[in-house]
Amino acid sequence: MIPVETIRRSVLDQRDLVESLFRELAEGSADTQGVTRDTYGRGENFAHALFARRSAAMGLDVSTDIAGNTYATWQGSDRSLPRVLIGSHLDSVRQGGNFDGAAGVVAGLASVAALRSIGLQPRCDIQTMGVRAEESAWFQVSYIGSRSALGRLPDGALNARRVDTGKSLFEYIAECGGDPTAIEQGVRSIDPASVRAFIEVHIEQAPSLIEAELPIAICTAIPGNFRYSHVKVHGEHGHVGLPRRFRRDSVMAAVDFAHELDRLWESYESAGQSMACTLGRFHTDPAFHGLTNVPGLFHFSLDVRAYDEDQLKKVEREVLEIVSRIERKRSVKFDMGVRASAAVGVADAQIRRGLVDGAAALGIPSMLLGSPGSHDSAAFAESGVPMGMIFVRNANGSHNPREAMEIDDFLDAVSVLSLWLAENACAPVPARGR
Amino acid sequence: MIPVETIRRSVLDQRDLVESLFRELAEGSADTQGVTRDTYGRGENFAHALFARRSAAMGLDVSTDIAGNTYATWQGSDRSLPRVLIGSHLDSVRQGGNFDGAAGVVAGLASVAALRSIGLQPRCDIQTMGVRAEESAWFQVSYIGSRSALGRLPDGALNARRVDTGKSLFEYIAECGGDPTAIEQGVRSIDPASVRAFIEVHIEQAPSLIEAELPIAICTAIPGNFRYSHVKVHGEHGHVGLPRRFRRDSVMAAVDFAHELDRLWESYESAGQSMACTLGRFHTDPAFHGLTNVPGLFHFSLDVRAYDEDQLKKVEREVLEIVSRIERKRSVKFDMGVRASAAVGVADAQIRRGLVDGAAALGIPSMLLGSPGSHDSAAFAESGVPMGMIFVRNANGSHNPREAMEIDDFLDAVSVLSLWLAENACAPVPARGR
Repeated sequence: MIPVETIRRSVLDQRDLVESLFRELAEGSADTQGVTRDTYGRGENFAHALFARRSAAMGLDVSTDIAGNTYATWQGSDRSLPRVLIGSHLDSVRQGGNFDGAAGVVAGLASVAALRSIGLQPRCDIQTMGVRAEESAWFQVSYIGSRSALGRLPDGALNARRVDTGKSLFEYIAECGGDPTAIEQGVRSIDPASVRAFIEVHIEQAPSLIEAELPIAICTAIPGNFRYSHVKVHGEHGHVGLPRRFRRDSVMAAVDFAHELDRLWESYESAGQSMACTLGRFHTDPAFHGLTNVPGLFHFSLDVRAYDEDQLKKVEREVLEIVSRIERKRSVKFDMGVRASAAVGVADAQIRRGLVDGAAALGIPSMLLGSPGSHDSAAFAESGVPMGMIFVRNANGSHNPREAMEIDDFLDAVSVLSLWLAENACAPVPARGR
Repeated sequence: MIPVETIRRSVLDQRDLVESLFRELAEGSADTQGVTRDTYGRGENFAHALFARRSAAMGLDVSTDIAGNTYATWQGSDRSLPRVLIGSHLDSVRQGGNFDGAAGVVAGLASVAALRSIGLQPRCDIQTMGVRAEESAWFQVSYIGSRSALGRLPDGALNARRVDTGKSLFEYIAECGGDPTAIEQGVRSIDPASVRAFIEVHIEQAPSLIEAELPIAICTAIPGNFRYSHVKVHGEHGHVGLPRRFRRDSVMAAVDFAHELDRLWESYESAGQSMACTLGRFHTDPAFHGLTNVPGLFHFSLDVRAYDEDQLKKVEREVLEIVSRIERKRSVKFDMGVRASAAVGVADAQIRRGLVDGAAALGIPSMLLGSPGSHDSAAFAESGVPMGMIFVRNANGSHNPREAMEIDDFLDAVSVLSLWLAENACAPVPARGR
């Protein structure tokens, strides 16, 4: 039995590995501010190449799949056993931070290195997975890499075009060595039955851990959502002098909508039902911009997320009722466009308990937390793979260059992950108590 | 004494002239939809060249001034008398309609042609003026041509950049043969004391005449306004999962602002105090567009107009109070940017009465109307020139390709204008009664 302290010490010894990986990732994907690891583009490709190179140098088996996901496998003594996947995504938003996504991949390699260096041997394969295309900012489709690997990418998603280049997801995947035709046919690179657990370390994308003064949190669930990525409000273009009674103002209609949505959100929060509403794009049509125009066309995107399926259904009904009411009041028409949704992803109870107990055994203070953001883990949960997540404290939110994760906090998360792997996937099992 | 009927018949005889002028204007400035007569650009230059050519062909004296405004002068028997100016602007918004502005210039030429053909001779000069650069859509500065001619272009306006090209107003005026340095020095091309009246025929930019089923209206006043053309709301970019209590959402702050502005507007209207609030641009920052971003930066333009100076002052105070309240509530900062304003322009009582009486004498039904839009006439009124306007019924608003003025209605306006000129600027004076 290996003492918990030995694992902890071995993890802390991986600081150089961890820092050098983060540094190389940042340098190779630096933008004018922060990093840009564009989905299936230069930045993400660089990160996958770096991950593959460093994994191979560690003696791990490197492979890729039809979606271009990269795997670094530490082979188990019985390869027929269901494996453990550790991972997260390697893409980022434009001018995002270095840790969002990548931390989960670095955590996998650091855990493997820590366990190997103290002579542990996995019973089943332990695979670190660099997931492709998690950030929906690029193709407005979420979990592209993980859902493709699980044979669950939605119909038509391969036709989505990258918002900056207009080139299709199909083309991008083919160019990156994937097989979009196989994805289209629903071929699975990962059989859910062959995966015992998917565990993801990720920076917290909100400051709840900062507020609570804790280094890590164990995930309870990932919010489900419904999304309308391209809503249009059709009113009528008019002249600045048009009296109120004649106006069909698309701005004021969209403002009414956002105002009522915000009141709805406030009322759920007051009732203790967490949710979040985001209008990531909310804009008049640039083709008709003018100080003296009453805008007849307005565009916005809507993302509503919550931890409860029934709540989500109810909110969506209420949102559509708001739309109908405003259409009548303002003589406008809302074209809601394409709807997308994701199910609530509940963390596996046993994994969650294991992570909580592990943190306690290591003396690392933690709390339970509903995930603020969406994660690939949700795609695995949806496919029936038992899932767990560890969040790391992060000062300035994510999706911006100022995200700030302390390596000490990160090594706390890696310690909990490593202990879980030692207890659940390795022989001999370490000793509890310190 | 020339009978009113003779003037009316002569105006109706100008239908071919009027239609050919409108047709040539439309053809020469056609865009994929509607017309584009860009300020100091190709479209506006074309319109001025056409106006000059057709005026010269009619035997009128053609001249231009330091701002590139074009004048067609029908010389009076006593050129030392204060002259009468008839005119409007020849520019348009992007993909606007053919009549907004140009109708006032065509009306001038048609009146001159009508009066000449029945042997009338002006006592003072009657000048038709094609005004430059009225549409603030291009440089976000209003009344550029008329205010430059009157020596009242605001300081710094020549540095304004055209929104589409980024080139300065100074450069554009110089390229069009004007003298921006003279404008900068406040040189006057038009001495207000030398102008007895400025009369502008313009399509109504709202459907009040459609609603009232009347062909024309006589203007009571042009609204004054205050404008903030480039407001920024600074919040903090965040991730879609950021809980409500942590957000500094620039969209929701701008929505709060627009919502409260709209309620304020509604309350003034309910109290019978007309005004109009327009958010011509209202948008998230395209550089950070994403379904999963909480926007930290928002942009909008604001135009508030009313017919009463005290009301405008009060509303502006209230608007700035709303801003302060939202800054506190949402932890955001509004940067209001450059403020501009225009005084309320009141129509000269005597001219207004003359036009109303003239319409009655001609049997043309009319009503009094506060102008929905801003017009060059306001710049003349501000300089102390007695001003009058005639609005023509127009079905689909202005600043769009579907504006719809009937030539019959237009000829009603030209009839009223011609009678006024005959009575006030010509010899012999026509007979009243029919």
